[in-house]
Order: sequence, then structure tokens, then C-alpha cells
Amino acid sequence: MSDENTLIFYDIPSKIGAWSPNTWKTRYSLNFKGIPYKTVWVEYPDIEKTLKDLGIAASATKSDGKTPHYTLPAIYDPATKTGLTESFAIAKYLDEKYPDKPILVPKGTEVLQKAYIDATRDKFVEVVRQFTIPKVAWSLNERSQEFFRRTRKQRLGKTIEELDPQGEKRKEEWKKLEEGLGQIDKWYASGKEDILVMGGEDKACFADFAFAGFVIWIRILFGKESEEWKDVSGWHSERWGRMIQVLEKYE
Amino acid sequence: MSDENTLIFYDIPSKIGAWSPNTWKTRYSLNFKGIPYKTVWVEYPDIEKTLKDLGIAASATKSDGKTPHYTLPAIYDPATKTGLTESFAIAKYLDEKYPDKPILVPKGTEVLQKAYIDATRDKFVEVVRQFTIPKVAWSLNERSQEFFRRTRKQRLGKTIEELDPQGEKRKEEWKKLEEGLGQIDKWYASGKEDILVMGGEDKACFADFAFAGFVIWIRILFGKESEEWKDVSGWHSERWGRMIQVLEKYE
Repeated sequence: MSDENTLIFYDIPSKIGAWSPNTWKTRYSLNFKGIPYKTVWVEYPDIEKTLKDLGIAASATKSDGKTPHYTLPAIYDPATKTGLTESFAIAKYLDEKYPDKPILVPKGTEVLQKAYIDATRDKFVEVVRQFTIPKVAWSLNERSQEFFRRTRKQRLGKTIEELDPQGEKRKEEWKKLEEGLGQIDKWYASGKEDILVMGGEDKACFADFAFAGFVIWIRILFGKESEEWKDVSGWHSERWGRMIQVLEKYE
Repeated sequence: MSDENTLIFYDIPSKIGAWSPNTWKTRYSLNFKGIPYKTVWVEYPDIEKTLKDLGIAASATKSDGKTPHYTLPAIYDPATKTGLTESFAIAKYLDEKYPDKPILVPKGTEVLQKAYIDATRDKFVEVVRQFTIPKVAWSLNERSQEFFRRTRKQRLGKTIEELDPQGEKRKEEWKKLEEGLGQIDKWYASGKEDILVMGGEDKACFADFAFAGFVIWIRILFGKESEEWKDVSGWHSERWGRMIQVLEKYE
């Protein structure tokens, strides 16, 4: 179905398929809006050049506060000759250019959605990283893995293997993960009716996808049959497992 | 204007007037909806008995996880013979019983508003407490002050005077407060247009009042001319000062 007007979605490959929580946010967004697109796979060392060649500005800076930091997801829309990066910015672009498709950030919800995403980052993403980052490294193709190991070492001050929690520490940190999700669970109505942020099972919005990208991370990296996914998908009346299930049609 | 059908709002008095961030959330809510009400002032040691006499259930438990913890704000609505406590629950009640008045929690925003409130608690309220709790104690009437000092000592493990940060520590913690507000600031569009959570200057919602209750705390406790209020109201392009100003009509 792809032709020269098909939107292009840039993602990072691995030995286990699509794995990046950040690019998942945009994959979910594109599928939710029903916009046809073609995926182009870019290994880590090639991200910067790929975006520069497309004239896409970096959305962030490195830790020195000035060197541009080029990241995926990115999209290029031949219909408008627009390329951009960063999943929230992409969601807003898609809403603006495709207003007749389902809306990711309904009017009046932008600040609230950003607060939701920030709070889920503090309570869940920051804790889950130690478990997932090592699995990511081991799953990447060779060129990306070398790049990923080197840049994470610089950023975190430890190797992937040192990051991965072991023994008692692993149990404690896994408990913290459950507690963090428990705080998020309190925002939702008790019982089973509230699966998505804006209520019910039908009306997804960008905040759902932003959070789900990190929850589905566990399923993708550890596998559907793993103890890890059984835990996460089962906690809090199976709220998180049901969330991923409800969003499955946008995978 | 009060008659036997006027809604009653229970608040905690002090030497400096209305001071409680939690009851401010409900005062703002009632004024926003334009519901006539009468304020009844209840000193701390009388809160439990007052609510029990009204048949109002506690909304929380003490740190043992089972003893009911009776708190204000509370309201009693003679029109429906309903009494309840906890500002979010009160907001939802008011929306349900008075749907023709402006809506505090528009459909689809409940989870998002709770996430916003939770995130502002982590980033702002938890840091500001050390500065405000001592000022609160010094401002309460004698009976409430004795109760407040005793229960805070139990909860925090230190006296009010030990909590109040001094010297270098005060400067560091004040800097953390600015940084926490800086993280909240990032959720809003840059520039001056975005003052309220749902956008613009007109469309307030409960999340605005929940956060504003803690921001106005600084102005009330330290005074309009204090260095503290000048700092907070001036940070981040005066976003917080302007927020309080925009909400002034609901004070």
C-alpha cells in the first residue's frame, strides 16, 4: 500500500522486533489515527545522520545542555514535506494535520496529559529501567548494541551488567515497581470499568499510549509467558494487562 | 443570605483567617460553581466529633491503616441531607448535584486530574511543607496549635521548630522548590497564554484549585510583601503569580 505519499515512521530494529517504548508511542498513535505509514528501521549509530539528512531538528540536548541529541521516533510526512521527532510533538502534528481522524490530544487536555506522563515516568519508568535496559542491550543488533552499551555507560556510570539488579536487591526493586504502579492505580476508579485514561475501553488518548509503551516493554523484552509479565499484567485487578489488551488493536 | 437550605462548609480557623490548602480547594470549588454557602469554623480537636455528629464517614485512615482519620474540608448539604469530606469527592458531588453550574471535573478528565494533583504533590507540596508547616503552627489558635504540634510530632518525628529549615539548608531546599515548580512549568506552553490546566484564563477545573490551594499557601502564610511570595509568584515568567491572580475571583 505504500507509495511516494505514504508517511514514513523511523524506528530502531532489534533481534526481537519493535522494542523501543518511545517509538511504540508513535506506532500506537499512527495506528490509532489510522494513517497509513511505512516503517524504516535505523540502527542507533545511524540515527543522527538520518535525521540530519531529512532536515529534522533534534528535540533535546545531551547532558552538556547544548549538543543536539537526535532521537527516535521520527516521522517524515511527504504530503506536507514535514519531518519531526519526539512522540508528543508528533502526536500534536498528527492531530493538527489529520483533524478528521481520532484525536490524540483533545482540546484542554494537553497540560493534564503531560502531567500524567511525567507522573508515570516518576512512579514507573524510573524504576523499571534497571530491569529493561539490560534486556534491551542483549536484544539489539550488533552495531546498535555497541553504541547503546557505550552511551549508557557514559550516562549511567555503570555497565549494563552492573545495572541489572540481582538477588535480594532484585526482589526489593521489583516490589518498588509494584508500589509505583499501585500509586498510578489509585487514579483510576476501583473495579474493572476504568481501563483507559479518559474512561472506558474505547476512548484512547496519547497519554494511554505514552504509558502503555513502557508497560508493553515488559511483555516484549521478557516474553508473554515470563514471570515478569505475569506479575505486571496481573497486579491491581489485572488493570495493566487489560490496558495492553484493550490497546492491542493499535499495535 | 443564609437560610436553612444553605450548604455548610467546614473550615479550620486561625489568627490569620482561612489558611488550609485542603479547605481552600473546596472554597475555590464552591465559589467557582457559585453555590451559596455558610462557613463553620472548627478547631482541630473538634473535627472528629463534628463530622461524627453529622454522620460523615472518614475519608482516610491513620498511619496504622485502620483508625478512621477525620479531616476537613467537609460540607453538609441540607438540600440533599448529604455530608461528605475530602475535596475531590466534594468536587464530584457538587458536579453531580449541580450539573447546570460550571463543571469541576469534566467527563473524561478524572484520571488525568488525579495524575496532575499527584504529580504536583510529589514535585511541589512535599518540598514546600517544611517551610509552611511551622508557619501554620504559629498561626493557629491555641487549642488547634497544641493539637497540631502534638500530631505533627507523632507523624514527622520532629518538632515544628526542628522541621523549619535554617541557613544553607534553607537556601538549598528553597532552590529545590523552584526546581520542582520548574518541572511543572514544562507541562504548560511557553510564554504567557497558558495559565490554567485546561488552557487559557477562563476554563478553570478542580486540578487548578487543588494546586492553587498550595501555591496561595505561601502568600497567606508569609504575606503578599514577603520575599517568599515574591520568589514563588515571580518564577517561570510569573506563571504562578498570574495563576493565583486569574483565580482571585473564586477566592
